[in-house]
Amino acid sequence: MDLLKQKILDEGEVYEGNILKVDGFLNHRIDIPFMREVAKEFHRLFKDDGVNKILTIESSGIAIGALVAQEFECPLVFAKKSKTKNIAGDVYTSKVESFTHGKTYDIIVSKRFLDENDRVLIVDDFLAIGNALNGLIKLVEDSGASIAGCGVVIEKGFQHGGDKLREKGVKVESLAIVESMNAEDGTVVFRS
Amino acid sequence: MDLLKQKILDEGEVYEGNILKVDGFLNHRIDIPFMREVAKEFHRLFKDDGVNKILTIESSGIAIGALVAQEFECPLVFAKKSKTKNIAGDVYTSKVESFTHGKTYDIIVSKRFLDENDRVLIVDDFLAIGNALNGLIKLVEDSGASIAGCGVVIEKGFQHGGDKLREKGVKVESLAIVESMNAEDGTVVFRS
Repeated sequence: MDLLKQKILDEGEVYEGNILKVDGFLNHRIDIPFMREVAKEFHRLFKDDGVNKILTIESSGIAIGALVAQEFECPLVFAKKSKTKNIAGDVYTSKVESFTHGKTYDIIVSKRFLDENDRVLIVDDFLAIGNALNGLIKLVEDSGASIAGCGVVIEKGFQHGGDKLREKGVKVESLAIVESMNAEDGTVVFRS
Repeated sequence: MDLLKQKILDEGEVYEGNILKVDGFLNHRIDIPFMREVAKEFHRLFKDDGVNKILTIESSGIAIGALVAQEFECPLVFAKKSKTKNIAGDVYTSKVESFTHGKTYDIIVSKRFLDENDRVLIVDDFLAIGNALNGLIKLVEDSGASIAGCGVVIEKGFQHGGDKLREKGVKVESLAIVESMNAEDGTVVFRS
């Protein structure tokens, strides 16, 4: 999505440790009119895949998830990062290792909100190693629902989480795939 | 908002400890087409107040915040619950005591995303004692921005956080105000 790539070039900041900071439009201050265009692009890419539910993970997936769900006129469910060790039996649960925070946490979705009648589009702001998406995919599989695909705003292609999912046959559509970036000069190169 | 009150009566569940569970449409599974009507109602109530930024708090305020920002064609900023004790100088910070989790945490907003040119509508899913809203109001005041008001989906009127804010002159609009509820028989009574 050219508009997104240009926005990343204009407003993104590159830091050591493979950090691309885009909190001015994607995940702290959210440029809603712009993100609505992003949501429309996801709709264009998945509109023939029978999607009837959007699934994301708190917190930074929720805003884009809401706008995508609006395009599909369907509900949004967000997986919660569990604060308690004792997880009741009425939730699906999965473990996610956080790239940013360097720790593992449980994510949960109530069993009432995912079932075998659901055709799920998983949406998230970033895809790097793929830990969050893999955790969400496990929740969907455990529920008996089927996966229409994964829609990602920015994929860090050099960390290959997206490639591995595609090799497994998952339809992954990332609107911008960063092939390399350089904290010294701030350059970002996209996969063509 | 009659549609919302009816939805609470139809789908809400009352539990001991003044808990009203509406996670089927408001804060876990989100009924996006319905919440869009909620967002339009907030726009109707605040459209003459010069709003140019929506502020909420992660996680359960984000979806409704995104839809409200869409109505106002303005950005959404969400305050983050800080995970670190060392908070850098480039953020506004405030303390919030959690009613649900029984602990106090810091919330932060980057100084880049709130300033004296902003006229802020604060949006949240619930208002009880008012801790989250008071924390958000402090962030806005610290930034030099002005507060257009607070838009709340469900206010627990019997906990009086909303009344105290109104007494201070803050425009607080709650789309449903619960005056009492009863965990034994599941009844919910709204303020008329």
